[in-house]
Amino acid sequence: MPAIIDLSYNIDPAMPVYPGSDEPTIEIVSSIEQDGYKETRISVWSHIGTHIESQSHIIKEGKTLDQFNIDQFIGSAIVISCNNLQYIEADLLPESLNKQKCPDFILFYTGWDKYWGTKRYFDNYPVLTLGVSKLLSSLPLKGIGIDTISVDPIDSKEYPVHKILLNNDKVIIENLCNLDKLPRSEFSFSCVPLKISNSEASPVRAYAII
Amino acid sequence: MPAIIDLSYNIDPAMPVYPGSDEPTIEIVSSIEQDGYKETRISVWSHIGTHIESQSHIIKEGKTLDQFNIDQFIGSAIVISCNNLQYIEADLLPESLNKQKCPDFILFYTGWDKYWGTKRYFDNYPVLTLGVSKLLSSLPLKGIGIDTISVDPIDSKEYPVHKILLNNDKVIIENLCNLDKLPRSEFSFSCVPLKISNSEASPVRAYAII
Repeated sequence: MPAIIDLSYNIDPAMPVYPGSDEPTIEIVSSIEQDGYKETRISVWSHIGTHIESQSHIIKEGKTLDQFNIDQFIGSAIVISCNNLQYIEADLLPESLNKQKCPDFILFYTGWDKYWGTKRYFDNYPVLTLGVSKLLSSLPLKGIGIDTISVDPIDSKEYPVHKILLNNDKVIIENLCNLDKLPRSEFSFSCVPLKISNSEASPVRAYAII
Repeated sequence: MPAIIDLSYNIDPAMPVYPGSDEPTIEIVSSIEQDGYKETRISVWSHIGTHIESQSHIIKEGKTLDQFNIDQFIGSAIVISCNNLQYIEADLLPESLNKQKCPDFILFYTGWDKYWGTKRYFDNYPVLTLGVSKLLSSLPLKGIGIDTISVDPIDSKEYPVHKILLNNDKVIIENLCNLDKLPRSEFSFSCVPLKISNSEASPVRAYAII
């Protein structure tokens, strides 16, 4: 039996959210006492916690998550350690990567998940440079993932890294966790979103199979 | 590259829901025109569309989905054809099944998904008998799945099939689709729920890898 590593945060009313977003709400709509079964209503903003996003997050008329084949969200992956770096630059990518030899996903481990639940999480976190973003976009990747709230700085108004990646049909997974538990060698990765009509993003339970 | 088969319905405001439930709502909270990016608020009842449920759906203080290790939701599976049958009985299970030789999941293909989107979907659909439920509960299964709205009849007040399965730590996946596309031999199955705190159920994007 292979090991499965959960790379996702809990969805909880007390969880940290992007400044300006609402926390999720979980409301009991049927109870065992009254109805014989429990049911809840869950309300979340689409970029809550561990989530995945596609072109239409930033680009008008861009591709939505439900327009992708499910294959887009499953595949091989590698993790790249960027611990204690402010900028994730092109020279961190393995030299051996090229259009012929490339995993489906690259995950960036910055170690920033240690600040999850603190104000620091949203402050001056590591980001991708335009250079590495352009290089990633030129590769046959399905997507990239990171253990921070965004691939662009918190005060970005133009979201250039998002635009470069999403315009090239990559998906982006943000707020991953447990990336330190992944091996140095290639593994299998799943970031299959809910199949929400016309969705620019979805909370996701991302995991790795080792 | 293995084939991936999506076994889940779209989450959409116009989707069919269990009588008495609300349809999902999808509301734009940030727009590219005003904010530079699009974000939505998604509100769903937990048993909407293709979904997974655990003990606490029916049993007070029962185990919630987030209390399971993620391994519970990934594994080997077989599909059993029950096309055109009203009752899913024990004699439909392969004779070779036993405590030593058992997949992680058994999916029941009733063909009822052809009524999805019509009134008929909620009316007199095929259900599991108590006999097959007890037999399934005695096996080392992680869960069972079906392409109908419930494993109990729509007018059930006591949910005996749910109770037998959930009490034995099986998870139940309802409203699956595309089960006719699955092979007769064993395949890999994923029904990983959102990691919602204290959740008795979650919408899920279930899929098979062939």
